[in-house]
Amino acid sequence: MTAEGLPMVVPAQDLPARVRIHEVGARDGLQNEKSAVPTQIKAEFIRRLAGAGLTTIEATSFVHPKWVPQLADAEELFPLVSGLGAALPVLVPNQRGLDRALALGADRVAVFASATESFARANLNRTVDESLAVFEPVVRHAKDEGAHVRGYVSMCFGDPWEGAVPLHQVARVCTALRDMGCDELSLGDTIGVATPGHVLELLSLLNEEGVPTNEIGVHFHDTYGQALANTLAALQHGVTTVDASAGGLGGCPYAKSATGNLATEDLVWMLHGLGIETGVDLGRLTATSVWMAAHLDRPSPSRTVRALSHKDQ
Amino acid sequence: MTAEGLPMVVPAQDLPARVRIHEVGARDGLQNEKSAVPTQIKAEFIRRLAGAGLTTIEATSFVHPKWVPQLADAEELFPLVSGLGAALPVLVPNQRGLDRALALGADRVAVFASATESFARANLNRTVDESLAVFEPVVRHAKDEGAHVRGYVSMCFGDPWEGAVPLHQVARVCTALRDMGCDELSLGDTIGVATPGHVLELLSLLNEEGVPTNEIGVHFHDTYGQALANTLAALQHGVTTVDASAGGLGGCPYAKSATGNLATEDLVWMLHGLGIETGVDLGRLTATSVWMAAHLDRPSPSRTVRALSHKDQ
Repeated sequence: MTAEGLPMVVPAQDLPARVRIHEVGARDGLQNEKSAVPTQIKAEFIRRLAGAGLTTIEATSFVHPKWVPQLADAEELFPLVSGLGAALPVLVPNQRGLDRALALGADRVAVFASATESFARANLNRTVDESLAVFEPVVRHAKDEGAHVRGYVSMCFGDPWEGAVPLHQVARVCTALRDMGCDELSLGDTIGVATPGHVLELLSLLNEEGVPTNEIGVHFHDTYGQALANTLAALQHGVTTVDASAGGLGGCPYAKSATGNLATEDLVWMLHGLGIETGVDLGRLTATSVWMAAHLDRPSPSRTVRALSHKDQ
Repeated sequence: MTAEGLPMVVPAQDLPARVRIHEVGARDGLQNEKSAVPTQIKAEFIRRLAGAGLTTIEATSFVHPKWVPQLADAEELFPLVSGLGAALPVLVPNQRGLDRALALGADRVAVFASATESFARANLNRTVDESLAVFEPVVRHAKDEGAHVRGYVSMCFGDPWEGAVPLHQVARVCTALRDMGCDELSLGDTIGVATPGHVLELLSLLNEEGVPTNEIGVHFHDTYGQALANTLAALQHGVTTVDASAGGLGGCPYAKSATGNLATEDLVWMLHGLGIETGVDLGRLTATSVWMAAHLDRPSPSRTVRALSHKDQ
């Protein structure tokens, strides 16, 4: 559909020179698949993502297999992909998960908190404070072992049960995670309802509460088509860590090819058009998502993947 | 999927208080349908769009029926929808089309120019300058008759044959249209490749060339998922006229439910989240797109329409 030389590279003022993409497709994407993807396919996916230039690839989750059977192969998978040169963070829900991850040599882990009571109850079966109490020794232990720790905060911009989420409530969870030692936060718009002013207001509030922008990543969903506009706002605020999912893997469960995570390709198109370095080869990344879509037997919801793959036909 | 009270309304600095949405679904959307939509359905669509609060609804095109058979019913359709209270601009390709439109009482017309030679040749079978020479007496005549004239400029940010399009080439076509009397320009990213820095650079160049921002509308396509981020950049520059298509009608012809025009619902979600007035009732608009999608027998590509209509089920 497009000729060479597109997008035209035209930088904008006051944007970062480089963005680190935190690729979540292999974990956040594949954990939402109805049936588990074979371990060898997952490993090949992660290898191809690294080959496309992604430097931070969330690999899997050391959650109990009963809760997320799709990622029950974490012990088999992780050794297959270590040594790629990419950072490979893994999710750990508790001390047991952390022990399993550390035993395999993981040096980057993430805990997954909620900004709302409803989602903490639904997802973790605990109150917000109870879940923070569980994470505290996990984070401390991980730090003692020299691991880098990321703190996810979900439902930062809205909650399917509670609706609007007060900003100070989000900030309280964020600062608690940081106080216990998290190196980095990831602000999740789990249901995709945020708009750019909301993003800027939360970032400013976090700064006021002492959280520096360089410790904040953003994790937007495209459920309402807002993810890239919200990303632009975050970049304008100075954020340089952006979560995205190759091919947009990890959609809402309710619709075929529905959109959940921001697609890495759509993000890279914008960043490269803005002259922002990512280290990613968009052609190789798109080819990886086309390959995975064939394995999953449904088209990628990424608009860039669709446009570029039709171009090649 | 979402509770009430979303999106949370959080304004951002230096954005317009109000945006006029130029709704193009009935013309730009339906002209791309394989088979013509019945005239009564088109009329009902336009009535429902007006009922949802849209104040500028591009109704049809007075192009020769041989070229766009989908809109061959312009003479029948226009009288069915006049008197709704909404402005109803129509496309006129030449003097004959203008005469037909004026005879029916149209008071807002639009001409459709190209920023590139390749597209001028493909779409208009003329060079850029030849097409401008055709438009000049049309625009003058329309102005003499008291009509408001919009000048579309397509391929402003990239061309499928030529790739990158030099900014000065776009500016030349824009200023030519303005010099012949166009009241408003619409900058079209026909293949959806623009990114925000590119948008800002073109807007600044047009300002330097004497075109004030309040005479500029933006017309983004979502082919690469960039439309809303580009819209945010344009709003930050001060643009207050944004083209969009209800339900995202008017996709690229190559893929079912592929994305072409920015969906009006996705735009309205962002604008309302930012506290920007549009006059649009998002619920009624979404219901209209769901109704039209049922008629067209395929789901809307608008992410907001999908999310909100699943919510209601």
